[in-house]
Amino acid sequence: MKNQLTVFKVGGKVLEKSALLNSFLKNFSSWPGAKILVHGGGAKASQLAKQLGIEPQMVNGRRITDAAMLEVALMVYGGYYNKSIVAQLQHLGVNALGLSGADANTILAERRPVGEFDFGFVGDVRKVNRQRLHWFLESELVPVFCALTHDGQGQLLNTNADTIASELAAAMSKIYDTQLMFCFEKKGVLRNADDENSVIHHLNRAGYEALYKQNLVTDGMLPKLDNAFKALQNGVNQVRITHVNHLTQGTLITLE
Amino acid sequence: MKNQLTVFKVGGKVLEKSALLNSFLKNFSSWPGAKILVHGGGAKASQLAKQLGIEPQMVNGRRITDAAMLEVALMVYGGYYNKSIVAQLQHLGVNALGLSGADANTILAERRPVGEFDFGFVGDVRKVNRQRLHWFLESELVPVFCALTHDGQGQLLNTNADTIASELAAAMSKIYDTQLMFCFEKKGVLRNADDENSVIHHLNRAGYEALYKQNLVTDGMLPKLDNAFKALQNGVNQVRITHVNHLTQGTLITLE
Repeated sequence: MKNQLTVFKVGGKVLEKSALLNSFLKNFSSWPGAKILVHGGGAKASQLAKQLGIEPQMVNGRRITDAAMLEVALMVYGGYYNKSIVAQLQHLGVNALGLSGADANTILAERRPVGEFDFGFVGDVRKVNRQRLHWFLESELVPVFCALTHDGQGQLLNTNADTIASELAAAMSKIYDTQLMFCFEKKGVLRNADDENSVIHHLNRAGYEALYKQNLVTDGMLPKLDNAFKALQNGVNQVRITHVNHLTQGTLITLE
Repeated sequence: MKNQLTVFKVGGKVLEKSALLNSFLKNFSSWPGAKILVHGGGAKASQLAKQLGIEPQMVNGRRITDAAMLEVALMVYGGYYNKSIVAQLQHLGVNALGLSGADANTILAERRPVGEFDFGFVGDVRKVNRQRLHWFLESELVPVFCALTHDGQGQLLNTNADTIASELAAAMSKIYDTQLMFCFEKKGVLRNADDENSVIHHLNRAGYEALYKQNLVTDGMLPKLDNAFKALQNGVNQVRITHVNHLTQGTLITLE
């Protein structure tokens, strides 16, 4: 039997509110078994960019990363959030190790080809170094990934944190029984975006397609659900989308 | 016989000039044996602070780190420089792993007690986790440290990069034959600060004291030399202060 691994993604408004973040980190720290954390930080990056006179540009909910914006991403994701979270986790007794994809060559990506849009320094994941991560996990280190990868040619790339979590979970499922958890400030996938009590407790692909046809999937949920089903198709056992305070509740996502 | 380890510190104007930094990283990448890199980044931190309306404050050549300045340090040291250097080194075939002292609990520090001055979130090194670093090095990872440590209670601390290099070298000398290299944009310790050709090729403690009495040690060199002798007293085999382009030249420092 394979060992258990849980890959957590935390983002959204959680990183903005220290009480929510602290609560999440406490729950994360007491979660049993091998675990990996992936965090975002887009809102603060946008804020810093603004302070520095850089105008954030978005296409279809995705950031266009020019050289100035990449520098901001390095600072906010790789520096501010990554180091703060690692220090907090150490205090909570978790031997956290902050990583970008460049560190120990853990995630190799490729700059997204210019098609209809040029997303700039944005990377699509090519290869997760699962042996190196396995080696870290076996030594009871807890990798904490920021939303940065590299191309192996010296170029750092911005990669969506949901995507990184999904790719890590899929890659590690060759070695571990892997669960993927998207943790945020809502109770799960909601049938009615305005009603916190309309949580869908179980969603499979057929259910998702039905929701999609009814236009009931919000913009922010779309990439999460796409990543969730992609992860399931690639060997991940189960995916959960849930509130940071209630890790075992929320929406359970399975293929069937 | 112990294995060889070289601890490099790079800082000063080198980080500001990409040609110098690239040249250093190339030389570093071809250096044989186990190695660790420690980098600074103070000038860019001051620049970012200024852009954000934070006035950098210094006492005796050391930065006072308030909460806003610590945030800048996390972003510039832990994010911008650390991730950029790691990605460059990966391109040069070095399996670099970026670290603050909080990552994998590698360097535990204590906030400096308030005496004549309150330096704010500044840490003095208490413990280097040499077994963890040994484990990384044995797996041919190359630790790349920024000038950040932590107190184990969730607080990150700013620690002088020269000091980190010196403390790492001293701690690792229990396991390795350790050499410490301070690499910068000058040819070494100069007898005359205005004459690049006045390099002192060998300096021992007696020679240093003589220079000091003649007021020939510049402000920037003082902490480097203090750290150099402290490292030698704590088991480091030799210390070299040299130009990034000429790693085997410069000033060799020994106790006797």
